[in-house]
Amino acid sequence: MTTTTLATQLDEQGILLVTLDRPDKLNAFTVEMADELEALFRSANDDDAIRAIVVTGAGRAFCAGMDLSVGGNVFGLDESQTPTMADMTDRLHDPAIERGVRDTGGRVTLAIHDCVKPVIAAINGPAVGIGATMTLAMDIRLASKAARIGFVFGRIGVTPEACSTWFLPRIVGMQTALEWVLSADILDADTAKAGGLVRSVHDDRDALLVEAIGLARKFTEHRSPVAIAYAKQMMRRNAALPHPIDAHRIDSLAMFHSSVGDGKEGVAAFLEKRPPDFKGKASALPFDPWGDAK
Amino acid sequence: MTTTTLATQLDEQGILLVTLDRPDKLNAFTVEMADELEALFRSANDDDAIRAIVVTGAGRAFCAGMDLSVGGNVFGLDESQTPTMADMTDRLHDPAIERGVRDTGGRVTLAIHDCVKPVIAAINGPAVGIGATMTLAMDIRLASKAARIGFVFGRIGVTPEACSTWFLPRIVGMQTALEWVLSADILDADTAKAGGLVRSVHDDRDALLVEAIGLARKFTEHRSPVAIAYAKQMMRRNAALPHPIDAHRIDSLAMFHSSVGDGKEGVAAFLEKRPPDFKGKASALPFDPWGDAK
Amino acid sequence: MTTTTLATQLDEQGILLVTLDRPDKLNAFTVEMADELEALFRSANDDDAIRAIVVTGAGRAFCAGMDLSVGGNVFGLDESQTPTMADMTDRLHDPAIERGVRDTGGRVTLAIHDCVKPVIAAINGPAVGIGATMTLAMDIRLASKAARIGFVFGRIGVTPEACSTWFLPRIVGMQTALEWVLSADILDADTAKAGGLVRSVHDDRDALLVEAIGLARKFTEHRSPVAIAYAKQMMRRNAALPHPIDAHRIDSLAMFHSSVGDGKEGVAAFLEKRPPDFKGKASALPFDPWGDAK
Repeated sequence: MTTTTLATQLDEQGILLVTLDRPDKLNAFTVEMADELEALFRSANDDDAIRAIVVTGAGRAFCAGMDLSVGGNVFGLDESQTPTMADMTDRLHDPAIERGVRDTGGRVTLAIHDCVKPVIAAINGPAVGIGATMTLAMDIRLASKAARIGFVFGRIGVTPEACSTWFLPRIVGMQTALEWVLSADILDADTAKAGGLVRSVHDDRDALLVEAIGLARKFTEHRSPVAIAYAKQMMRRNAALPHPIDAHRIDSLAMFHSSVGDGKEGVAAFLEKRPPDFKGKASALPFDPWGDAK
Repeated sequence: MTTTTLATQLDEQGILLVTLDRPDKLNAFTVEMADELEALFRSANDDDAIRAIVVTGAGRAFCAGMDLSVGGNVFGLDESQTPTMADMTDRLHDPAIERGVRDTGGRVTLAIHDCVKPVIAAINGPAVGIGATMTLAMDIRLASKAARIGFVFGRIGVTPEACSTWFLPRIVGMQTALEWVLSADILDADTAKAGGLVRSVHDDRDALLVEAIGLARKFTEHRSPVAIAYAKQMMRRNAALPHPIDAHRIDSLAMFHSSVGDGKEGVAAFLEKRPPDFKGKASALPFDPWGDAK
Repeated sequence: MTTTTLATQLDEQGILLVTLDRPDKLNAFTVEMADELEALFRSANDDDAIRAIVVTGAGRAFCAGMDLSVGGNVFGLDESQTPTMADMTDRLHDPAIERGVRDTGGRVTLAIHDCVKPVIAAINGPAVGIGATMTLAMDIRLASKAARIGFVFGRIGVTPEACSTWFLPRIVGMQTALEWVLSADILDADTAKAGGLVRSVHDDRDALLVEAIGLARKFTEHRSPVAIAYAKQMMRRNAALPHPIDAHRIDSLAMFHSSVGDGKEGVAAFLEKRPPDFKGKASALPFDPWGDAK
């Protein structure tokens, strides 16, 4: 996959480091970057060489938000029409809606949400607007001391996007989510950690990446890619169902399929006190209860 | 709007200070107070002079709960009938149900939930029963050291109300919510803060109100009332939807409408390094995906 | 009720102490233990002598997870068929599905979720796999310093179960839930407390049980069993509904029924400054808005 706004590097353990790579623009977000990120996360599901993904920014920023210097219609909107809720359900993949109306940040976070590999944000500097909200769909957020995180939409008269109002309260609770969005404050790394948004704060970029990659490795080494894929999607999807019995239906099938698959090897290896040798592939999950939403 | 249980004061920046005003009764809650609060929050949505709302109590209490001294049927129930779930869906606005069965606290918190202006609780003293639960629908809770908060329903053999079982776990998590409701404990200000219920604790009433009004100002100064309205309602409503794509549909339209509206001025002001001059009105939101639920 | 994997003891205040009782196997979980736990929690709803339930482990462990030493098909699965989502909805109580496919841990946590008595986990030592996830459906988790808690499914190539992906994010938030499940780490008691999973940590088993039983007593002494039952179920169920008005419908009926029942005595006792004498029975709730899900 050829990219112009992203640099990617896959290590021998299958950890894909994705670098937002417009350092002269503080990695500001463009429609092209949205397209490349969406394609990357969707195609990663089919690539068994990729076991986990770490996202960081080139240079001193993580992502300075939407690139307002592009001029013209920075939101990609076609103002000649007024879209309706019906358009957003019936015509979601109609190019006029998909390219002209749909929030570009949301296209990215939906792809991250659907990704069956662990995704870790390594926030190395300023992360504002979509730079902040894109990380909410990732599984874990780490920050360096230089991180500055802001849900700054209110400052320019626009609304939060990228499904951030769905993700943020699940991470930090409703009161903190409301305060951060209504205030549009820029949070330093310690404040973001105290509020529960970032998992840990690291001295500098190097220490940040070491921890992020170490965590990605812990999530994948001696792990079944199938079991990881289910665990991650079950956490994200089951928790939003109305009753635990809805989770139970999926749990039962996921346990059935993992037990007759990699679970057999896992239990055998455990009893024999040796590392497991899993054969399952995340590109070919034995069942998908989430249909084409993923 | 004439009120007998509330005192209201609107400052030059559009911050409405609402004082629960029955100090000789520790501001105990009555049906009249419920009616006045419900009407106030619903009518505030149509009044563009009001930018944010701060709620506090007169005298030494915030609100001592339902006024049990009124005698007779303190819950406003008509015991001659046994209402059913069907009544609560099909006849919700039938006066016999609305005035005779519906929980008065819930009428208030539903109005607060629907309010498109930021709402801040300044808890200046005891807040028990409905005095505690009414604050859960507000966006932010601040407390003075004199605050004492209790979900005390269990002590008198009744159940939590005011949709508190919907709001409380979203703020403090399920374990803390269950403990506080099952124990019916009275929490001091520091315990409430440690559990995540109140955002900060202040030395006295004056310091509490300065902080509450300062926060209200931060949420509204140089802000688009339209963008604030959407941000707040999206956080409350999108987070309860089953899948982030449901948020994405609404995000896309909110971003469309804010971008062709106040967002244009916001971006221009940002690029020109001047304060924005927003023209949008919260009384005339360009689209309302939530229908008449709001 | 005769049990072989559990020991039970009911004290004079109605606190039932349930001890997972296979100490030579670190109380490892078997299908028999699943059946006994499910039956115990379901039958407790009909037994008014039981006011609250405390669950702990015999000996040095709480529960070491699924008993992998049983051999054969430890998950109780019938591999000759491939069950589908349709089977999990239409045939949930068909013995072939119920006994051959349904996750045994989920049968237990669904019974705990439906239990109308407060349930407290007293985690006295290692609690891994189902030993950890069964506690997530309980209302409060306490730990001794010897507690070690692990969502270790990933280590053996299987997926989280027992509806844990539904329960865990509600208790600790989405980021911590994902990290703990993806890492499959063993958490010590202090880490579990810092993450919000356990409410408090106690020096040893004796101190743990004193606190757990004290809390159970606080939840039930001078309390209406009917009001407790509603409070607990409303917290668990209302919070999962799409809009607070859905909670309001149930609140209104629960308040109606508790007000014309034990609430009358509760208010009278409060005004007369005497302990209440409640007559309501949890075995005969006046209304059940949750249908046969409970």
